[in-house]
Amino acid sequence: MTRIFSNSSGRKHSAASVIAIAAAVLLGLAAGISCAPDRTVSRYREAADGLRRAGLADEKAHDMLRRITDGGPRLTGSAGAAAAVDMTRKMMEELGFDNVHLEPVTVECWERGEPEEARIFDSGQPAAELPLSVSALGGSIGTPPGGITAPVVEVRSFDELDGLGTAVAGKIVFFNRPMDRTLVEPFAAYGGAADQRVNGAARAGRLGAVAVLVRSLTFRIDDHPHTGLMEYAPDVPKIPAAAVSTSGAEKLSELLKSGRPISVRLKMSCRDMGPVPSANVVGDIRGTERPDEIILVGGHLDSWDLAVGAHDDGAGCAASLEALRLIKALGLRPKRTIRAVMFMDEEFGGTGGRFYVQDAARRGERHLVAMESDRGGFLPVGLAGGGSDPAFQRRLKAWSALVRPLGVMAVGPGGGGVDIGPLVKQGAVPVSVVPNAQPYFDVHHSALDVLASVHPRELEMQAIILATLAYVLAQEGL
Amino acid sequence: MTRIFSNSSGRKHSAASVIAIAAAVLLGLAAGISCAPDRTVSRYREAADGLRRAGLADEKAHDMLRRITDGGPRLTGSAGAAAAVDMTRKMMEELGFDNVHLEPVTVECWERGEPEEARIFDSGQPAAELPLSVSALGGSIGTPPGGITAPVVEVRSFDELDGLGTAVAGKIVFFNRPMDRTLVEPFAAYGGAADQRVNGAARAGRLGAVAVLVRSLTFRIDDHPHTGLMEYAPDVPKIPAAAVSTSGAEKLSELLKSGRPISVRLKMSCRDMGPVPSANVVGDIRGTERPDEIILVGGHLDSWDLAVGAHDDGAGCAASLEALRLIKALGLRPKRTIRAVMFMDEEFGGTGGRFYVQDAARRGERHLVAMESDRGGFLPVGLAGGGSDPAFQRRLKAWSALVRPLGVMAVGPGGGGVDIGPLVKQGAVPVSVVPNAQPYFDVHHSALDVLASVHPRELEMQAIILATLAYVLAQEGL
Repeated sequence: MTRIFSNSSGRKHSAASVIAIAAAVLLGLAAGISCAPDRTVSRYREAADGLRRAGLADEKAHDMLRRITDGGPRLTGSAGAAAAVDMTRKMMEELGFDNVHLEPVTVECWERGEPEEARIFDSGQPAAELPLSVSALGGSIGTPPGGITAPVVEVRSFDELDGLGTAVAGKIVFFNRPMDRTLVEPFAAYGGAADQRVNGAARAGRLGAVAVLVRSLTFRIDDHPHTGLMEYAPDVPKIPAAAVSTSGAEKLSELLKSGRPISVRLKMSCRDMGPVPSANVVGDIRGTERPDEIILVGGHLDSWDLAVGAHDDGAGCAASLEALRLIKALGLRPKRTIRAVMFMDEEFGGTGGRFYVQDAARRGERHLVAMESDRGGFLPVGLAGGGSDPAFQRRLKAWSALVRPLGVMAVGPGGGGVDIGPLVKQGAVPVSVVPNAQPYFDVHHSALDVLASVHPRELEMQAIILATLAYVLAQEGL
Repeated sequence: MTRIFSNSSGRKHSAASVIAIAAAVLLGLAAGISCAPDRTVSRYREAADGLRRAGLADEKAHDMLRRITDGGPRLTGSAGAAAAVDMTRKMMEELGFDNVHLEPVTVECWERGEPEEARIFDSGQPAAELPLSVSALGGSIGTPPGGITAPVVEVRSFDELDGLGTAVAGKIVFFNRPMDRTLVEPFAAYGGAADQRVNGAARAGRLGAVAVLVRSLTFRIDDHPHTGLMEYAPDVPKIPAAAVSTSGAEKLSELLKSGRPISVRLKMSCRDMGPVPSANVVGDIRGTERPDEIILVGGHLDSWDLAVGAHDDGAGCAASLEALRLIKALGLRPKRTIRAVMFMDEEFGGTGGRFYVQDAARRGERHLVAMESDRGGFLPVGLAGGGSDPAFQRRLKAWSALVRPLGVMAVGPGGGGVDIGPLVKQGAVPVSVVPNAQPYFDVHHSALDVLASVHPRELEMQAIILATLAYVLAQEGL
């Protein structure tokens, strides 16, 4: 697309007409949803416009994300996570947040150890040892030092596994059901396949399997394994569990179709390291009238260890910090406290979210709203909030007019998340920005979740929306 | 974001609750716009669902884009463009389109020649020759073989330029007004800065300047110059014009702030090569009842020469081909003809679009609707259509319910484009998919517009929407 100006002929669109078309499209977008008029919208229009302009002009969220990710991966309990705690506390102090402090969290620490090794042995081609790209799943035990070598059995569901019964004893079970790509919503496709990763080892271990390989949870076919948490069952022997890249899974499945015995040798030295002290990082803009009433925005500071977790969830942390920075930069004085929380350890069990509600600092505080950002730093396309409370959803829909200039059209129920789950249980209303999720699982929990995959403007747009909603909520309450 | 299943405790969200939340968000999205009920929607629901599922499952648009881009850049009149004509004709034949043929287009051919060279000479640091990353603008004349060396004057607007008057005579004028990043809509920001690129040489040449450098039209600060068309004025001496990368522009501007004389040497060997025969590529699904009534989908096959033009506009071509493939794959039999057109030469003046309406093959044909895709292959977020006809817009809004499961919420007026401009003038109704434009100008007209920057699912979603709307329009007419 090029030509939008012309000084030499009338045959092309003029600048004015193209700008008029663009403006008309925007106006059309803005007119797309008809909402009940709400006095709140006119009251906060100026603030919302100011936050939007300042955010787009400054574009600081991505710089913040750079500082958060510069220290490397932030696996729960790791030195990288500890450094990120210090860094985000420092950033909050530099930004002049109130009440900046750490709140202790005790996390379980798991280490990957040496890089994993996996090889396919094809009985039809005994000379060929094919490499297989794998990554231990979080929480998995390791293999013996020499690895585990065993025949591979492929299944696509727990039903199919159970049908095989003890025929899988002594074998490596290979869970190979892909995410259903006919579903538009990638999170739904993820949800429909993640049982293999989370519970595969327990289900296969119960039948005597010696290890499990799980197809990575992504739509893309490539060589990057995607890790993630797995869980053992208390009454079942623990067996090693690894994610295999989708291209590795396709190759292995293809070999198995030959009917020849196919074995895999899997070597992993991952292990649990026991409890480690860590922290949530907390900073406020103290409310001028009702400081004990809290509007919380946050993300989780821990990441997986294969990359720096730029989308998951550096983006949520950076957007939350930037939201508070914007409110301060505009000189807005919220009546209620707006708080940013960098939660520690979402990935290994939501520890930080549980410690947060139990911390002594919560005495006398009342959390009205909790806004968790943990779906990647992509283009915001909607809002979710209010759980299943239609009254709050109506208000959110009305207020969404304030962020509609950013293209945010959809407003739906829900809005919860792992870190704020305990707060929501205690009555806080969940609200979240819904980003474009189409590219999310390309990078999720893999070596591809790097800074360059986060678009500065798209991330900033999330921060602007958080700032706008947090400020309105801080003024209006529930 | 990880944990969506749990078999060991009740403290996390269960799989069912997370899927329920995801479903609720989707339903909430779908319920976001209230539309007048339209019988058309229920009539085509099954077809729309089928197209969506088949498209997401097959994901062929990106493979098509790979074939289009594998031959390299497709600059108007180049061997690459000619190869792409052959390739897309072959693809249409393989896909079993009807009436596959080429329609001749005579294009003006411009060549970049040797890679450009530019150096900054800082009178304060005579020993230092700083390299400057530049790219000749399309249509520019070259410099003499030894280059042009002249002092640089920075301006941010034509008013500022005119204020300097003949003080710029003998100098290189450096247009450095950035795209306004406070505008949400990147096309509006582009439109507000592109006058410098298109008309800068004519405006500066009139005052006796010897060359112009124009800040690249992108929000990002990096080393990639973004080229694009420029135009001379008939009564003004032609002077060389080059885009300079945004980081180069920042550097040059910083040096000029010193007040010291700063010169640049610019060397370019680009030149016009005269007219060259080329072609539009046309293929149909012939209508069963009214074959002479046409619903056109298309993009432009030519690209700039700095990369393979994956977004601009390989994506529009691939999405158009895939739209017809999907309709055929589902066994749908449109009453009116659905036609894919790969237009030649949008970038140098919309030649293909003008030749298309004049071609003898147009006799007896009536184009009801023209759907041009030329805004990148990113996530579709809206529809634009009907120009300024509110009656058609109401129908489009009602029909948009068919593609709302893909997240398309916004429906606005407009929908036109350069290639279909002449058809729209003759009464065809313009319709277009509106993609996320936030990342578009990062890659636009630069070396970054490569295949890897196009997301397979996002591009496919565009193709699905084109297929759905084209089919409904082919059945319903105007």
